[in-house]
Amino acid sequence: MTDSIIRIGLFGLGTVGQGFLRVISIARNAHAEIARICVRNLAKPRNIYVDPKLLTTNADDILSDPSINLIVEVIDNAEASYHIVKTALERGIPVVSGNKAMIARHLPELIEIQRSTGAAFLYDASSCGSIPVIRNLEEYYDNDLLLEVKGILNGSSNYILSRVFDHGQSYADALASAQALGFAEADPSFDILGYDSLFKLVIITVHALGVYVNPDQVLCHGIAAISDFDIAYAREKGWKIKLVAQVVKVSDDKFTMFVMPEFVSPSKYIYSVDDEYNGVVIRGECYDRQFMFGKGAGALPTASSILSDVMARRHDYRYEYKKMSYIGRPDYTTDVELQVYLRFTDPAVLDAIGFTAIDQRYTSATASYVIGRVSAERLRAAADILARPDVFLCNIPRFFLDRD
Amino acid sequence: MTDSIIRIGLFGLGTVGQGFLRVISIARNAHAEIARICVRNLAKPRNIYVDPKLLTTNADDILSDPSINLIVEVIDNAEASYHIVKTALERGIPVVSGNKAMIARHLPELIEIQRSTGAAFLYDASSCGSIPVIRNLEEYYDNDLLLEVKGILNGSSNYILSRVFDHGQSYADALASAQALGFAEADPSFDILGYDSLFKLVIITVHALGVYVNPDQVLCHGIAAISDFDIAYAREKGWKIKLVAQVVKVSDDKFTMFVMPEFVSPSKYIYSVDDEYNGVVIRGECYDRQFMFGKGAGALPTASSILSDVMARRHDYRYEYKKMSYIGRPDYTTDVELQVYLRFTDPAVLDAIGFTAIDQRYTSATASYVIGRVSAERLRAAADILARPDVFLCNIPRFFLDRD
Repeated sequence: MTDSIIRIGLFGLGTVGQGFLRVISIARNAHAEIARICVRNLAKPRNIYVDPKLLTTNADDILSDPSINLIVEVIDNAEASYHIVKTALERGIPVVSGNKAMIARHLPELIEIQRSTGAAFLYDASSCGSIPVIRNLEEYYDNDLLLEVKGILNGSSNYILSRVFDHGQSYADALASAQALGFAEADPSFDILGYDSLFKLVIITVHALGVYVNPDQVLCHGIAAISDFDIAYAREKGWKIKLVAQVVKVSDDKFTMFVMPEFVSPSKYIYSVDDEYNGVVIRGECYDRQFMFGKGAGALPTASSILSDVMARRHDYRYEYKKMSYIGRPDYTTDVELQVYLRFTDPAVLDAIGFTAIDQRYTSATASYVIGRVSAERLRAAADILARPDVFLCNIPRFFLDRD
Repeated sequence: MTDSIIRIGLFGLGTVGQGFLRVISIARNAHAEIARICVRNLAKPRNIYVDPKLLTTNADDILSDPSINLIVEVIDNAEASYHIVKTALERGIPVVSGNKAMIARHLPELIEIQRSTGAAFLYDASSCGSIPVIRNLEEYYDNDLLLEVKGILNGSSNYILSRVFDHGQSYADALASAQALGFAEADPSFDILGYDSLFKLVIITVHALGVYVNPDQVLCHGIAAISDFDIAYAREKGWKIKLVAQVVKVSDDKFTMFVMPEFVSPSKYIYSVDDEYNGVVIRGECYDRQFMFGKGAGALPTASSILSDVMARRHDYRYEYKKMSYIGRPDYTTDVELQVYLRFTDPAVLDAIGFTAIDQRYTSATASYVIGRVSAERLRAAADILARPDVFLCNIPRFFLDRD
């Protein structure tokens, strides 16, 4: 579509949708125009002026308009997003989306539809907002050399932990101020239970190693149960606690992945990723570590990322998913021993999980913890127990490498 | 060339060339093989085994071999590199190169040849080694939103300055240890006079803003004349001195660029880019600041970057230079007022440069300095005076922003 105008059908006019209208009005060289905008409620007051003739509540006004050659989908409902994206791709219309929950659940099917109809689906905005992680993994970092992708992928939980560790706020106060500033939703569980990071990790893994792993198969522990005791423990050691997502090759033909709070020492790159920022470390066999850092959330950073995907369509760019057909793709495993800190009150918790070895044990009237080794599979299987409000789990990297 | 094998003609078997052989032997999915290697000296001892049948000293054995469909050029002679690259592109053979000095001088002509013969020329390894700066600027960061690209682009000078500021070495000792470790050449002037950074900046600017600026038109001041006095001055303020290259929009339709030492405060991202690392900050209107960090030099990081370009050819990737045809491309200007520190002994230096205003003046038996404002054009025109061994120039960003 190099010489023609991109005519965009936009689904959603919330924060990101409005940010996208602003960004596209600045980008004089995008050669793109908004043809139609599908919203749930025509009468809803909005912060920007939108020509009422553009608005519709009928998805088919976009999906059946042959003059529209690109769909941008930024609604916040995963189920509705899935139906729009699927229908569009089935009809051969390319789509740009940022809906990580939907993509992480339905990517294999959406890849299949892309293959059969030839319509492209771009979604760099779904992971780390303005940081071009997916495009770089897809295009630049060969998986034969790639060893690890690890980072802070969720701005809300990172903002909360920054308030705690850099500003001395309590977790409850930090959560409240994140909500007041719009960095966390009224129901923050998507962010603080780790699901947002998990969905991004699933998408990243497809483009890093060419393997799709269902999010239900992945160990995911959030920060909801963090206590003053855990915070004091980390502070005494000079560490911060960060919510970290990682996919790591554990041998030539196996990799593991998980989302878990982690004790982070000051020598690590991610130690200084504060506030609502995201930071990703890409480690490879020959290029060592690379670090990408930027605003992971917010209307304009996300909208800029969507603009990049829109402009990529001018040159017919598409993800080729080439690593999915590589020889020697590694297999996902949870048969990996981790070293963790587990704080609990009820000793039954410890028994139920089944540590391989316990190296340190602390007991007091207010809190008990162990530091020990346990398989990722055991932790994953014990998700219900680990979700108890008196249990906090935190990764201790086996070797605090100088930098990672 | 998706289904066929990439048959590579390699020019150069020095450090990077040998690193490339190593990297390509690991990358099982590259579907690439080395068909022929052109070297200057067949008998030169090398650290890796190379089948002698692959070696030739005759460039034409590669350039006239119709079975070779990609040339990788990693020799260290800019003039010879130019002739090889030009000949190959004229014959329609795609080329991957990392020769920044050659590319910065000849890029307009090489772009023309690409346009007329259709042969692609990729050179992400030329700027910041393993950090994919060029590809991201070309593909991801729209220049309507882009405000600034600023960074530490030269690993050798950064290693030297790190030894000085983080390890208390003298400049002379630091230079000697950089040379001993292979981070600086026996003749280090290319690095420490700023030319390496300058050539990278020229290439980056083509892909950031779509404008080619001849390196001779750009203010470039290195670190060769740094003295203990300058180092002590920075230390007292809690700053480091870094050699920084930057291209900055100064208005909607103008930009400036220069390479100069800069006082860097701890709140800046580039403050913690130490040793032989490179770090680049990309600032945009809607995505704020993004920071990319990684190994900027060294055989394997550079070779990984070359591998990425080689693999991009599997999907017929090429730079489109699309920003060069954008409407409203900004114009280069040196009519910009900078705030600088100038240390000198001969007062005639100060008179010859012509400051607009002098805000601070210090005089002693051993050293004198002024802090004042002066146009970039004045500094550029005074290059000969600034090159005197008793003169050191250092940028003081007009506003020490919280982070940049």
